[in-house]
Amino acid sequence: MAETDLAIHAVDPALAASPWPVRDGRSRNHSVKRDAVIRAAARAFSAHGYHHTSLDEVAEALNVSKPTIYYYVANKEQLLFECFVAGLAQIQSAIRKAAKSNRSAHDRLKDVIRNYALAIASEYGWCMVRAEDQDLGPKLSRQIKALKSEIDRGLRRLLIDGMRDGSIQQCDPKMMAFALAGALNWIAHWYRENKSMSAAQIADAFVEVFSVGLIPRKDGANSAPRVTSRKRRSTKTNAR
Amino acid sequence: MAETDLAIHAVDPALAASPWPVRDGRSRNHSVKRDAVIRAAARAFSAHGYHHTSLDEVAEALNVSKPTIYYYVANKEQLLFECFVAGLAQIQSAIRKAAKSNRSAHDRLKDVIRNYALAIASEYGWCMVRAEDQDLGPKLSRQIKALKSEIDRGLRRLLIDGMRDGSIQQCDPKMMAFALAGALNWIAHWYRENKSMSAAQIADAFVEVFSVGLIPRKDGANSAPRVTSRKRRSTKTNAR
Repeated sequence: MAETDLAIHAVDPALAASPWPVRDGRSRNHSVKRDAVIRAAARAFSAHGYHHTSLDEVAEALNVSKPTIYYYVANKEQLLFECFVAGLAQIQSAIRKAAKSNRSAHDRLKDVIRNYALAIASEYGWCMVRAEDQDLGPKLSRQIKALKSEIDRGLRRLLIDGMRDGSIQQCDPKMMAFALAGALNWIAHWYRENKSMSAAQIADAFVEVFSVGLIPRKDGANSAPRVTSRKRRSTKTNAR
Repeated sequence: MAETDLAIHAVDPALAASPWPVRDGRSRNHSVKRDAVIRAAARAFSAHGYHHTSLDEVAEALNVSKPTIYYYVANKEQLLFECFVAGLAQIQSAIRKAAKSNRSAHDRLKDVIRNYALAIASEYGWCMVRAEDQDLGPKLSRQIKALKSEIDRGLRRLLIDGMRDGSIQQCDPKMMAFALAGALNWIAHWYRENKSMSAAQIADAFVEVFSVGLIPRKDGANSAPRVTSRKRRSTKTNAR
């Protein structure tokens, strides 16, 4: 198919289904087109599942031929890998930015939670959460595991920093990081069925859900052992 | 295979790989054996994935023939359904018990979180979380959705009750229920790779992670809008 056939779609690249008509020089456009291939694949995998999606369908969604897809990625497995990477990149970038910031760990964690939620609510969410690592070969799978580990370490680091700088409630950083990541990852399970909220609204809601609970308590329930005494108090509250 | 061949395994039913040798009357044993079939299927699905598990393998794990499996379930799809049901039953039962209790909603929610974590860390966790609903036909899938909805409603109800009886921090019950369920469901993703903790330890850790954060704040950060002022305070704490 001639690229010019699609020129009408190129008016607003953000809205365009395919970026092929934009002709501003090969090298500059290569990454834009590659991103479009990855994004289209993410949407197709999310809609039909990885195993039920063919590269023909990805090509069709972009109005290009399958050989065009092969110009940007080696095969379907690499495409899934790139979807993982594209989604994880947003979280990774927030984690790296957080590591360099001088703000309180609580504020930095809020930024990470927001970006994490936005990434999971994006078209890459399905690949990041619901595609199986095992669909990738050992080498690519190791790379994804390394990226995920970096995010896990980043979350734990922020929690530990927050306990040190006094901006985050005392907690088990490993379990809290698992809980945070789990709650955020799970967005990919329910969001597809419930699009009544925008990704930004979901991100705000999750920042709020965790934010208050993570603030250090000045009211006598700062550490786990004190939960028992709080429990008794809660029961009294209930009884009155 | 003759059932008596396996009599040696029947000394301790809790440890036995197969309950067939126990001969205490058909009707009483039927449900024990059926449970064993479902449990063996759950383990096989979790180890190899639903699509890569055959009923022959489930039968082999129990040292019985495939026709024996068909005596308890109609087909592989029903087996997956029963795995969902078995896992969800523990959470459902905790939710129903919680609804009848007079204790504070915070304490009741802690019980539900504990049972939820135990269920997900059990052999049924993979089926409940990582098997796709779409592997079930429309009718069975609707039944699973209904069970999951009951659990979601139960969590929201406890959160709302807790905001009313003063035992739970003000929050958006819908988002908090999604966050809780997501964090707990996610255990099925990381627990298989990290068996250094027992299911009970994980359950304790998750009760603790959520418990402190959900206690109402008496220190001026009781509702979402106040997070902003807390945020500023946190930053100050950081700067000093």
